[in-house]
Amino acid sequence: MSELLSVEQTAELLKAVDKILILTHQYPDGDTLGSGFALCRALHAMGKAARVECSDAIPEKYGYLYASMQQSADFEPEFICAVDTADARLLGERLSVYEQRVSLCIDHHASNTHYAKKLLLIPEYAAAAIIIAEVIRALGVEIDRDMAACIYTGIATDTGCFKYANTTSYTLRMAADMMDLGADSETINRNMFDIKSRARIELERLALDNMRFYLNDRCAIMCIMADMIEKSGAGEADMEGLAPLPRQIEGVHVGVTLREKSDGDFKVSVRTGNHADASSICALLGGGGHMRAAGCMVAGPVEAAVETILGAVKAVIGE
Amino acid sequence: MSELLSVEQTAELLKAVDKILILTHQYPDGDTLGSGFALCRALHAMGKAARVECSDAIPEKYGYLYASMQQSADFEPEFICAVDTADARLLGERLSVYEQRVSLCIDHHASNTHYAKKLLLIPEYAAAAIIIAEVIRALGVEIDRDMAACIYTGIATDTGCFKYANTTSYTLRMAADMMDLGADSETINRNMFDIKSRARIELERLALDNMRFYLNDRCAIMCIMADMIEKSGAGEADMEGLAPLPRQIEGVHVGVTLREKSDGDFKVSVRTGNHADASSICALLGGGGHMRAAGCMVAGPVEAAVETILGAVKAVIGE
Repeated sequence: MSELLSVEQTAELLKAVDKILILTHQYPDGDTLGSGFALCRALHAMGKAARVECSDAIPEKYGYLYASMQQSADFEPEFICAVDTADARLLGERLSVYEQRVSLCIDHHASNTHYAKKLLLIPEYAAAAIIIAEVIRALGVEIDRDMAACIYTGIATDTGCFKYANTTSYTLRMAADMMDLGADSETINRNMFDIKSRARIELERLALDNMRFYLNDRCAIMCIMADMIEKSGAGEADMEGLAPLPRQIEGVHVGVTLREKSDGDFKVSVRTGNHADASSICALLGGGGHMRAAGCMVAGPVEAAVETILGAVKAVIGE
Repeated sequence: MSELLSVEQTAELLKAVDKILILTHQYPDGDTLGSGFALCRALHAMGKAARVECSDAIPEKYGYLYASMQQSADFEPEFICAVDTADARLLGERLSVYEQRVSLCIDHHASNTHYAKKLLLIPEYAAAAIIIAEVIRALGVEIDRDMAACIYTGIATDTGCFKYANTTSYTLRMAADMMDLGADSETINRNMFDIKSRARIELERLALDNMRFYLNDRCAIMCIMADMIEKSGAGEADMEGLAPLPRQIEGVHVGVTLREKSDGDFKVSVRTGNHADASSICALLGGGGHMRAAGCMVAGPVEAAVETILGAVKAVIGE
């Protein structure tokens, strides 16, 4: 188990160290990157050497998070801090060399595996970036426009622009503070939520063509086959945010997205409303997750995969 | 011109009257309805007779705004207050009898035509519901859970869940206050933003099938033909929010949606990013609007309509 720290203790710890390597999780999102670059900018403002690393390439749309910022030249890290990363395995392949060496983890996932020596964990917060904002304040660093943009990005992306259940009044007030400090919410939200690639649009079209309804239309299943992904030209970044689509349809209690993997098996995402527990459905198939969002793997071919999933859905919500 | 009032003057005026008829605009949205029912509930809390009317049927999804509320029995109105209604003509056919008799208008549209005798206008605010919240506070009425839900709804719907450029830090803080007063933001946002009818999904699919790209892919045009609407079974409520789709595609500066009307002409919606002025494009075709969103009518058939629009787009953004 990690030693648990408060925001103040975390700030004291960071004040005492230099040459800080900040690690973000693989398949990086707005919260891990916003958290990482906000913290890095704050440490730079204190005159410390710091840089952010990620196992994967950072998608272009996040470029503004580190624009106008110089990563400190390569250094042998004295202190390693992971942000928004619940499990050391989520650091990904390239950063896996650091798995056993993480000095501090700053996170908001209740499922954090306590892999770091010290841990600042606030699971009530909608985004790790909110914790970062509190840490920066505790460091005595003024949050500038660029840090504010990073923090706003983390909050907005992890809450679906303040739409998800994790959004509290404190979430909104912290985002309001970041706007007052200069975060350009309009531009950030346009880049994060409004722009879709043509490949993504094409993939959505093919996937919608392919949606089927079951159990008196209470269950919708959308199959994303390997050949559809290839035909659309969609990359990993284009696949984000597809899983919620089936559940958004009126009357659908259980929305399922199947994605064909290279070995012919299927990655399954289950999303539910108030009437069904997604984690119970996926647990029946060896997976897990949360009440409203869970996942598992099932064997192909696609007809068999659909049958398997329908069996689990029926077991949970009835015929 | 209307006599302009402050929030405090508006509250004093409302304290002095009874039998208040609250008018909302036609094709009602979350802001006009949220504003109307929040104000109505506050007036009831003061022991006054008040009821909300709308020329059109209120879509089912807004039912929670007036659930648990009794409209006051039919009365001859002593005072008529329009909310979120910029022009008397927007009251719609059924309420047009009141056009010349509006005592007070509470609005946030800069384009308000001053049709009411008195006017509380705050164009800086993202939603009329924010003004209503200030008026209720000035009336000395405690905002209860139901009023908070109404006000939150107005704010969330008029800002695209805090995504649009009209969102300020004050907008977020007012929404945060409403959450603290009991507005169930999760349920409200799910109903307002997450649920799509099957007809809508089908129409989106058909419309995406039909999207074409022009001018080095800087312009995307989506044609919604009458037979597609019929085939999908989509009603007027299912058509909301389709116009932004073409502009959301990466690299598209001008997104155009054409909708075939019963006479074979086309209603055109133009949406633009930073690189083009939608109102200039539509002005060339006899229409108008804002920098980022404008509209006009063009003659069919569809091939001719597309040519006409492309001509105007080229004239504004070049070949």
